[in-house]
Amino acid sequence: MTDLTRPRLPRGLADRGPADLAATDRIMRSIRATYERYGFEAVETPLIEYTDALGKFLPDQDRPNAGVFSFKDDDDQWLSLRYDLTAPLARSFAERFDSLPKPYRSYRAGPVFRNEKPGPGRFRQFIQFDADTVGSKSIAADAEICMMAADALEDLGIARGDYVIRVNDRKVLDGVLESAGLSGEANAGRRLTVLRAMDKFDKFGTEGVRLLLGRGRRDESGDFTKGAELGEAEIDRVMGVLDAKAGDNAATCDRLDAEFASTPRGAEGAGELREIAALVAAAGYADRVVIDPSVVRGLEYYTGPVFEAELTFTVTGEDGQPIRFGSVGGGGRYDGLVARFRGEPVPATGFSVGVSRLAAALRAIGSPILGAERPRGPVVVLVMDRGPEDMARVMRLVATLRTGGIAAELYLGDAGMNAQLKYADRRHSACAVIQGSNERDAAGGPVVMIRDLVLGAELAKGSKDRADYLELRQKAQFPVPEAGLVDAVREVLARH
Amino acid sequence: MTDLTRPRLPRGLADRGPADLAATDRIMRSIRATYERYGFEAVETPLIEYTDALGKFLPDQDRPNAGVFSFKDDDDQWLSLRYDLTAPLARSFAERFDSLPKPYRSYRAGPVFRNEKPGPGRFRQFIQFDADTVGSKSIAADAEICMMAADALEDLGIARGDYVIRVNDRKVLDGVLESAGLSGEANAGRRLTVLRAMDKFDKFGTEGVRLLLGRGRRDESGDFTKGAELGEAEIDRVMGVLDAKAGDNAATCDRLDAEFASTPRGAEGAGELREIAALVAAAGYADRVVIDPSVVRGLEYYTGPVFEAELTFTVTGEDGQPIRFGSVGGGGRYDGLVARFRGEPVPATGFSVGVSRLAAALRAIGSPILGAERPRGPVVVLVMDRGPEDMARVMRLVATLRTGGIAAELYLGDAGMNAQLKYADRRHSACAVIQGSNERDAAGGPVVMIRDLVLGAELAKGSKDRADYLELRQKAQFPVPEAGLVDAVREVLARH
Repeated sequence: MTDLTRPRLPRGLADRGPADLAATDRIMRSIRATYERYGFEAVETPLIEYTDALGKFLPDQDRPNAGVFSFKDDDDQWLSLRYDLTAPLARSFAERFDSLPKPYRSYRAGPVFRNEKPGPGRFRQFIQFDADTVGSKSIAADAEICMMAADALEDLGIARGDYVIRVNDRKVLDGVLESAGLSGEANAGRRLTVLRAMDKFDKFGTEGVRLLLGRGRRDESGDFTKGAELGEAEIDRVMGVLDAKAGDNAATCDRLDAEFASTPRGAEGAGELREIAALVAAAGYADRVVIDPSVVRGLEYYTGPVFEAELTFTVTGEDGQPIRFGSVGGGGRYDGLVARFRGEPVPATGFSVGVSRLAAALRAIGSPILGAERPRGPVVVLVMDRGPEDMARVMRLVATLRTGGIAAELYLGDAGMNAQLKYADRRHSACAVIQGSNERDAAGGPVVMIRDLVLGAELAKGSKDRADYLELRQKAQFPVPEAGLVDAVREVLARH
Repeated sequence: MTDLTRPRLPRGLADRGPADLAATDRIMRSIRATYERYGFEAVETPLIEYTDALGKFLPDQDRPNAGVFSFKDDDDQWLSLRYDLTAPLARSFAERFDSLPKPYRSYRAGPVFRNEKPGPGRFRQFIQFDADTVGSKSIAADAEICMMAADALEDLGIARGDYVIRVNDRKVLDGVLESAGLSGEANAGRRLTVLRAMDKFDKFGTEGVRLLLGRGRRDESGDFTKGAELGEAEIDRVMGVLDAKAGDNAATCDRLDAEFASTPRGAEGAGELREIAALVAAAGYADRVVIDPSVVRGLEYYTGPVFEAELTFTVTGEDGQPIRFGSVGGGGRYDGLVARFRGEPVPATGFSVGVSRLAAALRAIGSPILGAERPRGPVVVLVMDRGPEDMARVMRLVATLRTGGIAAELYLGDAGMNAQLKYADRRHSACAVIQGSNERDAAGGPVVMIRDLVLGAELAKGSKDRADYLELRQKAQFPVPEAGLVDAVREVLARH
């Protein structure tokens, strides 16, 4: 063959192996069970949508936003791969408006795509898990989603106290921006600059955020980020909201009322947070769902409460440094997304989990939900001779094991016995089954040799005394009559 | 809002609801369990690949094949959405060649995309479930995959006798074509025409296939399909293979040896089928894995055994006509796909299941694996008053149910009691919980009203006599103290 193709994947895409897939599956099943307990039902939308339905056309352009993968259908309409699960839900809800129960609680999980520069831990295809309530303006819908997020984390094995669901309200932030002189359409850009600066508090600290709110900030590489050009008094006012969290929800709500309710918008937001605080207290979640005015959330489309699920523990990384996982999900109220289709406001609120990030955190704390890091492979039946009758014989042995409910395979390559045992090792198998001519022609009728690969490996280390050694050797490899195959293998598998 | 977007999906794409998703999930879990019992391990590849890695560039063109969704990456390389799970496996195996155990048994499931004209039951995104053994030239690998397909169908609730795994070998067909004078590169096109004609046997019968093998065939609409231009003797020879299946595998193998082994290629194919017959007989699958020389399979890349999983029962359709589901999966040996990357032949064999088609068949026979067509919705806690304290109260009730492991929701809309009960109906709920002021202020302390919605619906039909009616009415709605909420709801749920 002259024209070889190099086997490779585009940047930011990756194959996933059995351990990763099994962990993801367990996480998704756990979240599903939690969400169904809250009355949310499953829905799935296709991976391809009309670009305009996703709202990804930039104003005055005839090509979709660069951040999405797009291509033209044969009728020349633009299609895109979904970049999140919220825009497709808005389309799906609007399309099936008449047939859906309202309010409509649903959950959806699956891959989303970003046509962006990938980096370490940043992929162009990744899994999100979303839940949304569409068609309810009740603040109870927001409170419920926060409690559901808390339950989801606990059901995944994250202990109470190791996480917090932080809640704020965009209206509180709007009120602060308004009183800092940033209301009106003309200030939309500056408002966004301020919100983004506030969102950097964890990263840059007080000093950095103050710079971003004022003239701007020069980073270590010398790059300059232009600031929001606020005056000192306005900066103080904005910084105040980042620091407004008090000892408990009631105290935080009191402070918001006292200091951030001077505009009607701010008062409305403070009122909504007080409602949420009352609801989560009644349901017994006051220590887990915490009002925290420093939560911002980057997305522009939020219109009311915003939430962030944060892991608060640290683990020690491979380099000995503490790792804090931080946010593993977030969401908020978006009352405008469905309106694009229906021309009337349709209230909605939702929460999205980043599954890969959550998986990394669960692995770090050794959550039992993930199961064994590397489960045992199947029993390997070795192939000693390859004539048609020999093959039929081992095929019968392996079929007997499978019929007995035991995961088993026969070795299908060309190699000899030692290489076959190495293969079994590579498969992380606990047990091999061998039937050579000695076993086949045994005096009392055909037998099979059962080999305990875990004990065999221990034996090979050779650190036992003589009596132990003999006992171990007997347990590590022993013959049984063919009829005893399944029971003997079960016994070995039960050891490990 | 002046500029409304119409909520719609591109042709051939669809949203999927909870019943469909639950059924698919159960099917996939069952197949996974079967495949893992055979020692196959999970792997997942991304949905986007380099177009050249998928082999989807048309010869002498610089654009990808029209049948795939393609777009350019920002470095100008062509990317495509995967159109099956075999091409990505070949890429993935070649890319991870050094780190994988060999032979490598793996399974993969997920959406694939076809940029083709959709039709009834034909989608542009659909789910495949594949299993492949790469790196084994042993015919035992093919036999194993056929038995695994049989087990997968039985584990899904399809009775023995209601399906058959039909097996042929491309080499037998090659031998027939060669002896019909169609060997050599110059006849590649005609060979394909012959194979495609043979593959139409179920559709057009003997007469139609004979026409396609000869001059050609005019269909009812008057369209003419050019034939392979074989002479009568060659047509007889080709038709003979479609009819070569005998009473059992041994008899079929004897007939193949006698009539279709005159070329070395044909003899090789007949020998492979005899090997498969021996292996499946040894493992007890001779009645389910059946040698049938009429199996062709459309794809060009098969190089040895080919398989087809066929459902043999019929069900009565909505129009009273019998429906035969036919093929629900197929596969075969493809020794050339990985070679494109490695420059050396890498033997491989695989099997692919069409999950949607299988789901339709399982639904038709009412397989218990699918679960209830429409499972019961969550318990609905009605909202009678909407003051902050009232909301806190119902939030506490619903949290109590959820903590008790009961799927429950509080009604989050604006409507009154009757509309809320209608909502519960739409959710297919079995039970509603009501606490109005009467219940809250009850003499002996607050109670909740438990409403059995199924019995309630029976009552409403009003066909019972008086004594029954009273008893039924009492069971259909009754008050319990708040502390008895979870037990009372459990009792009602247990009824249905």
